Amino acid sequence: MYSVTVRDHIMIAHSFDGDVFGPAQRLHGATYVVDVELRRPDLDADGIVVDIGRAREVLGRVLADLNYRNLDDLPALAGRNTTTEVLARFVFDALVAAIRRGDLGPGAVAVEHIRVTLHESPVASGAYEGRVSGAS
Amino acid sequence: MYSVTVRDHIMIAHSFDGDVFGPAQRLHGATYVVDVELRRPDLDADGIVVDIGRAREVLGRVLADLNYRNLDDLPALAGRNTTTEVLARFVFDALVAAIRRGDLGPGAVAVEHIRVTLHESPVASGAYEGRVSGAS
Amino acid sequence: MYSVTVRDHIMIAHSFDGDVFGPAQRLHGATYVVDVELRRPDLDADGIVVDIGRAREVLGRVLADLNYRNLDDLPALAGRNTTTEVLARFVFDALVAAIRRGDLGPGAVAVEHIRVTLHESPVASGAYEGRVSGAS
Amino acid sequence: MYSVTVRDHIMIAHSFDGDVFGPAQRLHGATYVVDVELRRPDLDADGIVVDIGRAREVLGRVLADLNYRNLDDLPALAGRNTTTEVLARFVFDALVAAIRRGDLGPGAVAVEHIRVTLHESPVASGAYEGRVSGAS
Amino acid sequence: MYSVTVRDHIMIAHSFDGDVFGPAQRLHGATYVVDVELRRPDLDADGIVVDIGRAREVLGRVLADLNYRNLDDLPALAGRNTTTEVLARFVFDALVAAIRRGDLGPGAVAVEHIRVTLHESPVASGAYEGRVSGAS
Amino acid sequence: MYSVTVRDHIMIAHSFDGDVFGPAQRLHGATYVVDVELRRPDLDADGIVVDIGRAREVLGRVLADLNYRNLDDLPALAGRNTTTEVLARFVFDALVAAIRRGDLGPGAVAVEHIRVTLHESPVASGAYEGRVSGAS
Repeated sequence: MYSVTVRDHIMIAHSFDGDVFGPAQRLHGATYVVDVELRRPDLDADGIVVDIGRAREVLGRVLADLNYRNLDDLPALAGRNTTTEVLARFVFDALVAAIRRGDLGPGAVAVEHIRVTLHESPVASGAYEGRVSGAS
Repeated sequence: MYSVTVRDHIMIAHSFDGDVFGPAQRLHGATYVVDVELRRPDLDADGIVVDIGRAREVLGRVLADLNYRNLDDLPALAGRNTTTEVLARFVFDALVAAIRRGDLGPGAVAVEHIRVTLHESPVASGAYEGRVSGAS
Repeated sequence: MYSVTVRDHIMIAHSFDGDVFGPAQRLHGATYVVDVELRRPDLDADGIVVDIGRAREVLGRVLADLNYRNLDDLPALAGRNTTTEVLARFVFDALVAAIRRGDLGPGAVAVEHIRVTLHESPVASGAYEGRVSGAS
Repeated sequence: MYSVTVRDHIMIAHSFDGDVFGPAQRLHGATYVVDVELRRPDLDADGIVVDIGRAREVLGRVLADLNYRNLDDLPALAGRNTTTEVLARFVFDALVAAIRRGDLGPGAVAVEHIRVTLHESPVASGAYEGRVSGAS
Repeated sequence: MYSVTVRDHIMIAHSFDGDVFGPAQRLHGATYVVDVELRRPDLDADGIVVDIGRAREVLGRVLADLNYRNLDDLPALAGRNTTTEVLARFVFDALVAAIRRGDLGPGAVAVEHIRVTLHESPVASGAYEGRVSGAS
Repeated sequence: MYSVTVRDHIMIAHSFDGDVFGPAQRLHGATYVVDVELRRPDLDADGIVVDIGRAREVLGRVLADLNYRNLDDLPALAGRNTTTEVLARFVFDALVAAIRRGDLGPGAVAVEHIRVTLHESPVASGAYEGRVSGAS
């Protein structure tokens, strides 16, 4: 199995609802360093999984909707806690949609599996991974 | 599949028994940076795998038994080489026991898989991972 | 010249006032990884600059006033942009005050110079450094 | 499942053939930081997956054929784009051959799975992983 | 003294002339991770050293002349070994020129000192630093 | 001012004497990641501060006396706490002696200043720096 991983980051504000979150129930924020791993069993004729430059552009566009925002105000995320895990799934779903639209090129349909990891601090991260066909 | 990863570290002394270890047969030591990844297929009602703060506390208690110790003197590890791999398994088993005791909260029973990685230097690490039900 | 450096981090929300900040004028947030370097020309009788454990405790208390907060609401920072540079100076001033109160132990009066660096993302950081006597 | 990971790096020149590569069609270069993870279900009698020191030596010998080279000139890689993914597979195949020759010791036949990751920059990496028996 | 540091990277090919370089006399390459620290004694009215976004743009333009190139072919670097140290000085001089042209904004004339560090591998880096007025 | 920095690491055991050290009075250990920065005002005819390869060899030899050792048993360090700061000075002195013996080549006499940093964990490091002529 081959894979490529690209990295970007966002700086956001948000708050959480629920006693389990303790002081994180207050409005605070995070720099999320986002790693996206794209996997497929074989390479294309150029010898790549997908074009890394194009993958970075697509990831950048997905993250642009979140960057420099208070996530508590975003309709797309309304009614849920925007935890690291929930955001990882949000990015995963957006990337699957981008692949289906062809934004990553025609060869990207061969991508079988995506893992999205958000590093929120030097001591904690969250991730979501699943098959591109939609199953977890 | 969702996951969260938390990080802590310990500073220990130990020695190894066996020609394969060369100079590491002498009493020496290590800073182990410990990453614990907890995986489950769905999030709880708060939108999390487990509470990251609570996961860090539980990991801290598990590591407190090893930290600032000469592992050659610990009864719990007697009779074996405390290699990076063996320590990763030791932490894994202690975390599974902690989940069963409820230390990570009632929702942590949904955690299916744990990976424990110990980074011993910038160029080497060891890990153990397995299902929480006990199989490797 | 000897030095020790300790690290901690905070997760905050804030917004900036001024066209130069572009999208960062909106409410957003950051994980700041904070490094504090303490310098003195000679070691004490124990062979240390200051006790690293105590330095981490003092830094933790200084940062607790900022952590999980919207900095726009903090009276201590009212009326200024809480840029990375401004926050580095804020932490510097708080550490100098802590040393003068004796929080870092009597030997910490020998600390001559402090550098505070805040890493806001993988591609940007800000810092303030100066002599403990107050001059920059 | 147990694993150990060892790290080394190489500094190479190369160029790519294909419009998808844009400016990387020109002769350029990279520092590749190479991580090799070796996995097996049980530890040997010494409590290890393989000897980490020996694993680093074997990896060093594999990489020596590439290090400080223009990969466009290497017969072993002629006729293909030496992308990060292709190089990861090249290192994987060389490690499997080394294990079969016994270079990693007789116990290394128990290694079931290898993952080779090449980090080409702070924002991109490529990998190949598969079973040692040869399947992907 | 205040400072901000911004980071970018380039991927280049080159070779060195001189026995001291051993195998690096051959055509090879590197990923250089470039850190630029800009220092000034006081902040501007917005509370910043310079606009970090603008600093990253200026650094990006300076590095664009080197990125994805064989440095042996660049007239601007002809006749010298493009060692890490030499490239750090090259970037320093280009940044000083950019500040003088006003590319970093009018406030950047207050920048007194710049340090440029190029990380060539996990175990080696080179740097040049000096006053903006031109002295080292 | 130009500089190069090289990195290596050691794995040692030791204990500390003094109430200030708390649990670190017990026999424990550390992986120290060691950075050595060598500074000089001008480059040599080859365009370098010193040969990075040679600098890494010299650092490796200095560290070999400490690596895989219980520092409590080393005569060269007897009677003192082998704190991070003390070890940084020990490495500094050994490097100055190596330069004087010519181990770093004849051009290394132009090195004016050395900084030695030992990272003991992700949250703490210690350093010593001074002029090569011996003064701090």
